[in-house]
Amino acid sequence: MRTDQPAAVLIAVDEASGIGLLTLNRPDQRNPLSAAAMREVTMGLRALSAESTTRVIVIRAEGPVFSAGHDLREMIGRTLEDERVIFDTCTEMMQTVQSVPQPVIASVQGAAVAAGCQLVASCDLAVASSDAVFGTPGVKIGLFCSTPMVALSRAVGRKRAMQMLLTGETIDAETAADWGLVNFVVDPAALETETAALAAKIVSASPATVRIGKEAFYRQIELPQEQAYEAMAETMATNAMICDAQEGMTAFVEKRRPVWQGR
Amino acid sequence: MRTDQPAAVLIAVDEASGIGLLTLNRPDQRNPLSAAAMREVTMGLRALSAESTTRVIVIRAEGPVFSAGHDLREMIGRTLEDERVIFDTCTEMMQTVQSVPQPVIASVQGAAVAAGCQLVASCDLAVASSDAVFGTPGVKIGLFCSTPMVALSRAVGRKRAMQMLLTGETIDAETAADWGLVNFVVDPAALETETAALAAKIVSASPATVRIGKEAFYRQIELPQEQAYEAMAETMATNAMICDAQEGMTAFVEKRRPVWQGR
Amino acid sequence: MRTDQPAAVLIAVDEASGIGLLTLNRPDQRNPLSAAAMREVTMGLRALSAESTTRVIVIRAEGPVFSAGHDLREMIGRTLEDERVIFDTCTEMMQTVQSVPQPVIASVQGAAVAAGCQLVASCDLAVASSDAVFGTPGVKIGLFCSTPMVALSRAVGRKRAMQMLLTGETIDAETAADWGLVNFVVDPAALETETAALAAKIVSASPATVRIGKEAFYRQIELPQEQAYEAMAETMATNAMICDAQEGMTAFVEKRRPVWQGR
Repeated sequence: MRTDQPAAVLIAVDEASGIGLLTLNRPDQRNPLSAAAMREVTMGLRALSAESTTRVIVIRAEGPVFSAGHDLREMIGRTLEDERVIFDTCTEMMQTVQSVPQPVIASVQGAAVAAGCQLVASCDLAVASSDAVFGTPGVKIGLFCSTPMVALSRAVGRKRAMQMLLTGETIDAETAADWGLVNFVVDPAALETETAALAAKIVSASPATVRIGKEAFYRQIELPQEQAYEAMAETMATNAMICDAQEGMTAFVEKRRPVWQGR
Repeated sequence: MRTDQPAAVLIAVDEASGIGLLTLNRPDQRNPLSAAAMREVTMGLRALSAESTTRVIVIRAEGPVFSAGHDLREMIGRTLEDERVIFDTCTEMMQTVQSVPQPVIASVQGAAVAAGCQLVASCDLAVASSDAVFGTPGVKIGLFCSTPMVALSRAVGRKRAMQMLLTGETIDAETAADWGLVNFVVDPAALETETAALAAKIVSASPATVRIGKEAFYRQIELPQEQAYEAMAETMATNAMICDAQEGMTAFVEKRRPVWQGR
Repeated sequence: MRTDQPAAVLIAVDEASGIGLLTLNRPDQRNPLSAAAMREVTMGLRALSAESTTRVIVIRAEGPVFSAGHDLREMIGRTLEDERVIFDTCTEMMQTVQSVPQPVIASVQGAAVAAGCQLVASCDLAVASSDAVFGTPGVKIGLFCSTPMVALSRAVGRKRAMQMLLTGETIDAETAADWGLVNFVVDPAALETETAALAAKIVSASPATVRIGKEAFYRQIELPQEQAYEAMAETMATNAMICDAQEGMTAFVEKRRPVWQGR
């Protein structure tokens, strides 16, 4: 790692809000997802996730661009083994977003393209500034966005994913919301507060319950419906036995606020 | 079953319209899906389905609320085995909606939440009053809506399902239509007539053909595309051989109305 | 094949634009997809695909109707084996659309129903005239659109596919775009130019890269996410090694236009 530039990724936990904040921090380079940066994101997610006060993780970016994707200079004139390392590192980062127990929210301004778009697609939830754009432009430089399309096609469906992949053109924030790639479009000035407001809703819930739910979501979505039901019936029955569920149901019946057991 | 309260579920077949009507009938309790009520729904669907005059089934509800979901009092202070019984009973009900040969239409006013939302998501079609709202609020009471999410995530996609599941907030009827959770939004005063009009379109079709189609739909949707095509090519070839198909195609070529063989 | 009528399908390659054009050419019969016509489409796609100058394939239709679907007269009074031949021939055509290496764009005016709707759903991209309508009306003639629903349900989701399949009613072009069945809705007078403009974007890309991407798309979409990532990480790593990717990335870094190696 070069020492004459800032860290690619910053992490911080705000104990008051319960938010673990991961910031892409190379705005002058359009927050490239170099192999080193991707490793930092993965490690950052794990570190934030391990903090007892982290209830939700927000991935945000410094500067006018969320992320321009991979660092192309790392992929020119390399061996196949070098290339494999990059895409395996990328895949590990995307899978970590979904495997950490806390929900992960992307908070996006400016361009989120290629692996940057994939990162948004991989997050559990996404809030976009109205100036955000999303795209998979690899086709324009001879490198089809084949790993981004795994997340993209599962978020927006076949024809729309094909349109983005084959034309390489971006879609705006409203279109991204219309297609289900992001959840909310907000005024640029309100991005931070709206992201925090969404995070606060999750933080108010039982952390044990949220963990059960997120893990279960990605497990069931891959299964045929019958197997999904079998797995989820058992998941929900065991969820119902935990203290926070017993407390939450009792509080609801008694018309009072529940008191969660904490982490 | 307590005898001092009305039946949780009413069923009736209107022979003239071909509609089998299943009514959630505990409006004062917000039509809870207690284990007993869910068994009544399952038995009601089977009973309606077995009637020779039933061409389509409508699930509707008495009162201002479609269904508030499970009866929480049944899940407090119980054994794991008790909890399992509830969620297995729930899953059986949802699967019965899709396994009865007649199409099932949800006709929804007010709140359809948790298992109530799942029931709407599980129906083949849904008509919503403009005052309807849909949600999976389990996260707020410590019990993540893990079985509802099986149907919900298959109806509205990943990011939108996650939003409903993680925030516990409801979406309105227009949003539900925009996301593909319901088919039509209608004026509250027109809910019954619009539902009946939709049902009438199905009733005008060959019942044998509708049965073939519904069964085939849920079979193919779970398969990889190549296997789905293999199965559906055979399904459609055999469908073409039945009397109603031969009659329907001949009537079309002869520009006359077809006469179906009945059930 | 009767000799007193025009060819059911015309093919032509425009070397200047890189577009292989396949035209459904029986406008007086509403471009029926008879077994013979479907074989011609399949052979036409393969022939166009084999031309070294074909970078993208457009499927269009002569006359006011895109396609009315199967030729019903072929399905009346036949043996099961005859019927099987038709639906196997149909499936082979639809799979060929997705298996040829070049992207296939549907350019649609008027009605695209039954197998005609399936053909649009099967194309990688679709441009629709604002007068286009889409439907799966088989249920009305006793023959449920079971093979069309394989492509349709994967394009528009469960509830919407069920609505089209069970009611047999058409949706207009705007609805088709809203549901993800087509990508763009254009003025009827602009259908040809807008389709060509979309095709031109694909033609400007590296043909080797587009081939890698299309093949990979249909491979990954059928896999569980983890397997999809494993496959796509390897696909993208090998893609990065090809000459066009090295050229494209280098050109991007050098802020110049890339020069592709051709086919």
